Amino acid sequence: MADYEVSRILTGIKGIDAMLGGGIPDKSIILLCGGPGVGKTILTLQYMMSAVARSEPCVYVSLEEPMEKKTLNARAFGWDLNKAEADNLIVTLDIYMVPHSQGVVEPIDRKRGKIQFSIEHEIEAAVKRIGAKHIIIDPLTSILVHESRSGKKRHLICQLFDTIRRMNCTAIVTSEGLPRVNEFYMEQFLADGVVLLGKDMLDFKLIKTLRIDKMRGIDFDDQPRRYVITPRGFQVFNTEPVLV
Amino acid sequence: MADYEVSRILTGIKGIDAMLGGGIPDKSIILLCGGPGVGKTILTLQYMMSAVARSEPCVYVSLEEPMEKKTLNARAFGWDLNKAEADNLIVTLDIYMVPHSQGVVEPIDRKRGKIQFSIEHEIEAAVKRIGAKHIIIDPLTSILVHESRSGKKRHLICQLFDTIRRMNCTAIVTSEGLPRVNEFYMEQFLADGVVLLGKDMLDFKLIKTLRIDKMRGIDFDDQPRRYVITPRGFQVFNTEPVLV
Amino acid sequence: MADYEVSRILTGIKGIDAMLGGGIPDKSIILLCGGPGVGKTILTLQYMMSAVARSEPCVYVSLEEPMEKKTLNARAFGWDLNKAEADNLIVTLDIYMVPHSQGVVEPIDRKRGKIQFSIEHEIEAAVKRIGAKHIIIDPLTSILVHESRSGKKRHLICQLFDTIRRMNCTAIVTSEGLPRVNEFYMEQFLADGVVLLGKDMLDFKLIKTLRIDKMRGIDFDDQPRRYVITPRGFQVFNTEPVLV
Amino acid sequence: MADYEVSRILTGIKGIDAMLGGGIPDKSIILLCGGPGVGKTILTLQYMMSAVARSEPCVYVSLEEPMEKKTLNARAFGWDLNKAEADNLIVTLDIYMVPHSQGVVEPIDRKRGKIQFSIEHEIEAAVKRIGAKHIIIDPLTSILVHESRSGKKRHLICQLFDTIRRMNCTAIVTSEGLPRVNEFYMEQFLADGVVLLGKDMLDFKLIKTLRIDKMRGIDFDDQPRRYVITPRGFQVFNTEPVLV
Amino acid sequence: MADYEVSRILTGIKGIDAMLGGGIPDKSIILLCGGPGVGKTILTLQYMMSAVARSEPCVYVSLEEPMEKKTLNARAFGWDLNKAEADNLIVTLDIYMVPHSQGVVEPIDRKRGKIQFSIEHEIEAAVKRIGAKHIIIDPLTSILVHESRSGKKRHLICQLFDTIRRMNCTAIVTSEGLPRVNEFYMEQFLADGVVLLGKDMLDFKLIKTLRIDKMRGIDFDDQPRRYVITPRGFQVFNTEPVLV
Amino acid sequence: MADYEVSRILTGIKGIDAMLGGGIPDKSIILLCGGPGVGKTILTLQYMMSAVARSEPCVYVSLEEPMEKKTLNARAFGWDLNKAEADNLIVTLDIYMVPHSQGVVEPIDRKRGKIQFSIEHEIEAAVKRIGAKHIIIDPLTSILVHESRSGKKRHLICQLFDTIRRMNCTAIVTSEGLPRVNEFYMEQFLADGVVLLGKDMLDFKLIKTLRIDKMRGIDFDDQPRRYVITPRGFQVFNTEPVLV
Repeated sequence: MADYEVSRILTGIKGIDAMLGGGIPDKSIILLCGGPGVGKTILTLQYMMSAVARSEPCVYVSLEEPMEKKTLNARAFGWDLNKAEADNLIVTLDIYMVPHSQGVVEPIDRKRGKIQFSIEHEIEAAVKRIGAKHIIIDPLTSILVHESRSGKKRHLICQLFDTIRRMNCTAIVTSEGLPRVNEFYMEQFLADGVVLLGKDMLDFKLIKTLRIDKMRGIDFDDQPRRYVITPRGFQVFNTEPVLV
Repeated sequence: MADYEVSRILTGIKGIDAMLGGGIPDKSIILLCGGPGVGKTILTLQYMMSAVARSEPCVYVSLEEPMEKKTLNARAFGWDLNKAEADNLIVTLDIYMVPHSQGVVEPIDRKRGKIQFSIEHEIEAAVKRIGAKHIIIDPLTSILVHESRSGKKRHLICQLFDTIRRMNCTAIVTSEGLPRVNEFYMEQFLADGVVLLGKDMLDFKLIKTLRIDKMRGIDFDDQPRRYVITPRGFQVFNTEPVLV
Repeated sequence: MADYEVSRILTGIKGIDAMLGGGIPDKSIILLCGGPGVGKTILTLQYMMSAVARSEPCVYVSLEEPMEKKTLNARAFGWDLNKAEADNLIVTLDIYMVPHSQGVVEPIDRKRGKIQFSIEHEIEAAVKRIGAKHIIIDPLTSILVHESRSGKKRHLICQLFDTIRRMNCTAIVTSEGLPRVNEFYMEQFLADGVVLLGKDMLDFKLIKTLRIDKMRGIDFDDQPRRYVITPRGFQVFNTEPVLV
Repeated sequence: MADYEVSRILTGIKGIDAMLGGGIPDKSIILLCGGPGVGKTILTLQYMMSAVARSEPCVYVSLEEPMEKKTLNARAFGWDLNKAEADNLIVTLDIYMVPHSQGVVEPIDRKRGKIQFSIEHEIEAAVKRIGAKHIIIDPLTSILVHESRSGKKRHLICQLFDTIRRMNCTAIVTSEGLPRVNEFYMEQFLADGVVLLGKDMLDFKLIKTLRIDKMRGIDFDDQPRRYVITPRGFQVFNTEPVLV
Repeated sequence: MADYEVSRILTGIKGIDAMLGGGIPDKSIILLCGGPGVGKTILTLQYMMSAVARSEPCVYVSLEEPMEKKTLNARAFGWDLNKAEADNLIVTLDIYMVPHSQGVVEPIDRKRGKIQFSIEHEIEAAVKRIGAKHIIIDPLTSILVHESRSGKKRHLICQLFDTIRRMNCTAIVTSEGLPRVNEFYMEQFLADGVVLLGKDMLDFKLIKTLRIDKMRGIDFDDQPRRYVITPRGFQVFNTEPVLV
Repeated sequence: MADYEVSRILTGIKGIDAMLGGGIPDKSIILLCGGPGVGKTILTLQYMMSAVARSEPCVYVSLEEPMEKKTLNARAFGWDLNKAEADNLIVTLDIYMVPHSQGVVEPIDRKRGKIQFSIEHEIEAAVKRIGAKHIIIDPLTSILVHESRSGKKRHLICQLFDTIRRMNCTAIVTSEGLPRVNEFYMEQFLADGVVLLGKDMLDFKLIKTLRIDKMRGIDFDDQPRRYVITPRGFQVFNTEPVLV
């Protein structure tokens, strides 16, 4: 593809940026899928801190795991989220979903105790407050898990993605779980890009790989690549085959 | 088969046209199945621009992903959809499906804000407006996802396909997901032709193949073939075995 | 088996007739199963034209795909269905099933616009009109897909098969999809014979095989056999092993 | 096991009788499982004609496939069911199950048009009429298919088996389908013996095997054995390994 | 584990007792899982007769298969249950479960025609009557099969196991079916010990193995071991690898 | 990761502590998953007794299996739970869940017969009573099994985990069952760490492995490791490959 005209956003992870030929397309919605313990949250934080280092404001929507916990874990990588928030480079939304009787589900703002609000509106307000260029949602699953009808689920995703697009932001949205090759989640079709973090077992040896499954508008390395998580975050071995 | 009398439509993808012995049969409805990131949308755009280059008008029904995004991504391939639309060679319908309570689902026209219309009628009107010879629907899944009863689903597909046939058009209809060998989607039986885009993993190497699963009325190469997507669109290695 | 006394019906496909030792037993109901694109409809047409060549009248019940399309595709094989119909050797019923609210499903006659009729009665009338010896139904699935209860499904099949038996006809009934070895569809138990058309992938090479799974009352070659579809219809390699 | 005291019933199939060390235990209920086309009905007929040859009366309950068809097919093996029935050595019950609205299912006697009866009572009456020592039910599935609740299904089977036991008969009951190793049908636990007829595919070669999965009260050869169906019925290669 | 202080109960099967290092822990509830025909009932009878030989009274709860049939089959192994019952060393409860409308299920005492009782109370009364030290339930599945809600099922099991524990008995409880490695039934978690009887097919050869999956409070051989059933009951080859 | 600042809690199992580089992070919630018989309860007891040896009080919530049974089994490892309870180093909650009609489920305190209480409140009170630093819940499954809606299930887990976090405790929570690689349970995403205990069968040899699947905030050995259970508890072979 003649992607000379597509402007890019660095993910801050060297190997991934190389696989993408210079970062993700600006204003893309990237879905990040993986099972427990693959490092999805770490990748979102690394992405955010890379944007912060470029002085690009971010809105981080944390669902379920308290943001406080993430802030603490981020320190192990040398990432100071509190400072970035004080500098107005980050707004964090700390939300959990409470199911009531009769299937009604309501978000609650953990920090402010706020109830009866729309996540989309909160994101919009936060984006405007700091002029955010990035939105991170971790995990999308938390919003979808209460809805079992696939048509309704699809609509919830579309609504959220439309909000992100209307705000002209680039987004990283995580999804719990990893589909196998040629299986997929509905949200993979709706996102502009999909990155998969997988674990495989080969003769009782664990192999962790990252694969870019989809990236609209640009060329990219679509092969799976091994990765490790070090004290400086993700390291992707993008120039080597997985098996040697 | 003595297919000398079947008139053909070039897909614009050299390898596929060669596998088909000269293109798809005129007035066929071709289903294009594949998981996320295989290039279904790119293939539909390449098909359309090939028709446009022959001055054959097309109606493009875009569901979910905003048409605007597709138009933008098309530019990376050197395809100018806006010009084609200005030249009356393309009409785009930009639709999304909204589920209401009690299972009622309604299409909304993203561009015109129009509601309470029938997709079939819109297609019919658009076809008439520019004398279209081709209809592209991307993806069909968006129309079917709200319906869980298989009998009802089958009927929705039949209705849509009957409209296409009545308009005397050739059609490319995409379907999200890829059935395995000897599994299938209902819509594969109802379509005249089926093209599958698949990803397989062999020793942690990704292999992408295209296979023509079905094509009523003509002979064709039914073997899977490797493909890549380049700045000029699909390139299919139709003269080589997948594994060397 | 001492099958000397079983009178036979040639299928018109040399390889299959050889596998059967001279054709299917007279007055049998044969189920033909296969996924999309395996050639089920072509096989039914070849069977019918072989009967027509022997001046044995046939009733062809076409569901979903318009009969007109089949007639067109048949011409590529040199089969002139219109002439046969004019000669009173074929009656075609062109039916589609429409689901109404509350689960009621009604057949509609595409050609005559007729509604509120029983498929069984139409078949019976058509058989009597031309003194048909053969009934073809393509596909049975279309009648069953609206019913999810397995007991009810079984009854629908029994009713249809009883009608065929009462008319003293031999029948080919197609079924969409292909069960794996040791899996099956309910209709396979109720039919007198079952022929399976399958696709398998071996190292990214497609292999198409035909297998006679069941044939009451006679001996037959029960091994899978490769086949191709040529301008003269099915060609089955019944004397070779599938893998060489 | 010290099975000297268990009196045996010959099945009439030499290989099976050898695998059992002299036949099935008297008064056992044997379940015969297999997919379409494995020869379940042929085996039941061969069993019955072997009993008839020893002048032991049998009640044959035929469900779905008309008894008339079975009688016809039996002739290919040289088995004259009509004569046996005339000699009062066989009573055949020709039943099909009709589902009404609201889930009620009723058996109908195909021969006599009788309705509103209990299958258990009919079997009991028939057994008494000719002093039957054997009951054959082909297939049990037809009675169970209308019931989806597993507790209810289990009860239906128990009721039928209790009737058979109360009549002091030995029984062969067929079941449509073949569970894989370590999977099973509920009825396998309730029967005294289970014989499985399976098809496997090995490198595109079909292999048909018979395996005795269970036989209460006696020792038996529990290995799978190849079989063919010849003009004289089942032939089981019980002294050879399946693969050579 | 320092299991010097755990008092043991011999199972009466030498190989199993050896695998357990001297028998099962006193007052344990052991679940015995296996598909049809693996010998679950034989194992329960062998266990019981071993206890009887040590003059330890047993309550045997037989569900579905009439106790009478088991008593008969036991004779082939030289086990005289009638004598043991006459000697007050055995009480047998012969129960079957009858589902009524509206999901209500009631046990019926086959011997005494008793209805409207609690199985737990019957067991309790029987244990007290003869001072039983062992309870055998064959199969538990019969009690659970009518309940589809997993929470309710779990509670039924807990209730039964609590009764057994309150009576200070050691118990063998059979379960129909065999979970694969790393799959399981709910009852496996609730039991103190689990023994699995499995069948595997290797190149068309049947291999039967017994594996102790769990045994709270003691060390044991957790490897699968081949077994056969001989005229003297179970023989387990506990000192050999399964494959040689 | 620069985990110098994360304070650690020894698990008391040398091999696991080594794999973790010094123990689990303080105030983490660790999920311990495994099928029946892998030693989940033993691991929780070993963890607790290691804390007791450091004079750190623990609250142990035992569900289903009576605590008394665990106390007994613990003695085989030389662990005296009664003494620890007398020393106010342990409080045990002995709870079982009773489902009532209409889906209402209520916990019952086995020891005190207490009903109508909240498990969260009981845990909170117990933690305060002895100043507990550790909470063990065995198994979580017992609380979740009565709820089938995944959204509601997720909420139940969140509520419990929030209570643990508010009490500033480190927790071990067991989960019945073992997901395969790249499958998972919802609770794995919500926990801070996940340890999997698995059984695999290789040529009829059982292989037991422990794998740390996830541990937020620190580096760890993520490879599977063989383990055995000895009279002194878990022994993990963390320096050897599983297969040699």
